[in-house]
Amino acid sequence: VRSEKPSPDALSSVGEFGLIARLASLLPPLPDAVRAGIGDDAAAIAFGERTLLATTDALLEGVHFRTDWTGPEDLGWKALAVSLSDIAAMGGRPAFALISLGLSPDTPVSWTEALYRGMGRLSAEAGCPVIGGDTIASPDRISLNLTVLGEAPGGRYASRSGAKPGDLLLVTGTTGDSLAGYHCLKRGWSDSNADEAARSCIRAHRRPVPRLKAGEAAFATGAVTAMMDLSDGLSGDLRRMMERSGIGAVVEESRLPVSDAMRETARLLGGEPARIALQGGEDYELLMAVGKEGVPVVQRALESAGVRATVIGEATGRRGEAWLRRANGEEIPLPEVSWDHFT
Amino acid sequence: VRSEKPSPDALSSVGEFGLIARLASLLPPLPDAVRAGIGDDAAAIAFGERTLLATTDALLEGVHFRTDWTGPEDLGWKALAVSLSDIAAMGGRPAFALISLGLSPDTPVSWTEALYRGMGRLSAEAGCPVIGGDTIASPDRISLNLTVLGEAPGGRYASRSGAKPGDLLLVTGTTGDSLAGYHCLKRGWSDSNADEAARSCIRAHRRPVPRLKAGEAAFATGAVTAMMDLSDGLSGDLRRMMERSGIGAVVEESRLPVSDAMRETARLLGGEPARIALQGGEDYELLMAVGKEGVPVVQRALESAGVRATVIGEATGRRGEAWLRRANGEEIPLPEVSWDHFT
Repeated sequence: VRSEKPSPDALSSVGEFGLIARLASLLPPLPDAVRAGIGDDAAAIAFGERTLLATTDALLEGVHFRTDWTGPEDLGWKALAVSLSDIAAMGGRPAFALISLGLSPDTPVSWTEALYRGMGRLSAEAGCPVIGGDTIASPDRISLNLTVLGEAPGGRYASRSGAKPGDLLLVTGTTGDSLAGYHCLKRGWSDSNADEAARSCIRAHRRPVPRLKAGEAAFATGAVTAMMDLSDGLSGDLRRMMERSGIGAVVEESRLPVSDAMRETARLLGGEPARIALQGGEDYELLMAVGKEGVPVVQRALESAGVRATVIGEATGRRGEAWLRRANGEEIPLPEVSWDHFT
Repeated sequence: VRSEKPSPDALSSVGEFGLIARLASLLPPLPDAVRAGIGDDAAAIAFGERTLLATTDALLEGVHFRTDWTGPEDLGWKALAVSLSDIAAMGGRPAFALISLGLSPDTPVSWTEALYRGMGRLSAEAGCPVIGGDTIASPDRISLNLTVLGEAPGGRYASRSGAKPGDLLLVTGTTGDSLAGYHCLKRGWSDSNADEAARSCIRAHRRPVPRLKAGEAAFATGAVTAMMDLSDGLSGDLRRMMERSGIGAVVEESRLPVSDAMRETARLLGGEPARIALQGGEDYELLMAVGKEGVPVVQRALESAGVRATVIGEATGRRGEAWLRRANGEEIPLPEVSWDHFT
């Protein structure tokens, strides 16, 4: 299957998103019961009187995690959090999860038990029981595949495609903490030798909190026109929302949601907080577009769910154009810092 | 995570089934809506007025398949077939599937497209649309994870645990063809150099047909007391049904369902057909227990679904004892030829 040198037929030549589109066209057409499929955070499908949401995510050792950076309890938590975040992004409510686990025969049982403890903790907090799974031998790398099913309350769910010019762009919590934590780990900083700000970022990287109540409450207001979760980073994910909605965007640099811990950690790392917040990745915060008049009600809904959100900018009619407005009023192209698994 | 030498804490010391039981105890208790979980072919969960069935299966290159033995179209078909077979084993009807695909950056796009064509063909035949998924980089081995959701018609589904002493044991189709095909491939036989019987066994290995209509029709008669699919092989899987049902079993060697092609291939391989039929593995036929008086109605239901079934023996009250009755009337312990990923 593998060629000696990259060929024009290799996956790296089409990239992850090109591949997904090409493959989707080879499958039978989706039936009427499927309302959203490839392109949103989760698929939605009518099931009796109700609407199911379904998402699946794979995590592979050495690609998505390192066991020396993320302990088993954190990994179990995070693997489930990644998929729960997709349900949150649809404004949905989780129902149950399935896990496939690939382990080497010499993996310690105690390590595997700690993984399940971490996953079990989030499972209980989120009300999302793990009802089944598969366990296989994986000689080289530990792998986890989580599938989460959820429900769209009242049959309604958010998509990435409904943002309109003039909508304000909101982000929950703060972004870039996880990326800053990742850089700390890369430098060999840890809980035992890092200062408090860095430890907070490391924790954000290891234990993301899916915004389930916030996503459901915000979407239930009826004022959210588009929503998605930030898994690949604010800059790249905003571009995907723009593309699916056919809009442009202006982001205010001064409004980027930077935590004190991340700002301090950026200083220690010698990085620029705004750039780290834009690049991000594995934030698992929610990005939403909201009509101007709807912003107060959405903010109140988010507050009642215990989450703060920040207006970071505005959707525009300049389709495909993403700008960053600096503090001095100058507009520069929004830095392109996205993630593609195959290139 | 990996130790230099096997430790008493290593997974290989507890085995796959020991591990699953230990891990399940670390998760929060399952809610009332979950009616069957770990231990059956699929989990069943109440969702509104309906009952969902859910199953997930991982396939890893070098562990579950070899790309030089199984081409991409066959692999795509087979990956979906494995999970559909779990739905069939519950007497269920498939609803939709999700796929996680792990690929190396230098995997040819054409190979991936062929995989999707094969999966798409079975998806269309089974009425089970693939509605979403995830694609990740997997540097060492190609991996596929299929999750299939289905429905239990009328909220009723089969389990492995209902077989009663005196029930007859039925198997659909024939067993051991896939194992014989595997041995042909291991010897370097292929479509171009093998005779017709061997090619038929190779095809059974590459393109198993999930018994969806048969499983649903048989279970709908109300006469099936226990059902499961044969993925690890008749001998090992029957033992699992016995354990879950608290029964024993006697299998008649002369009634083992051996196809002409497998018998001929066994001769070419120098193997014994009955042993190959018992060992099997990846048969994806259905094993069911049926009260004696119910057998004719189940046989008719299976025939109407286009599937032949064979009575291979009987459940007994001798809990945990599995016997093989030879043609001369002699009873010997049923050969133990099961599969454990970790030992």
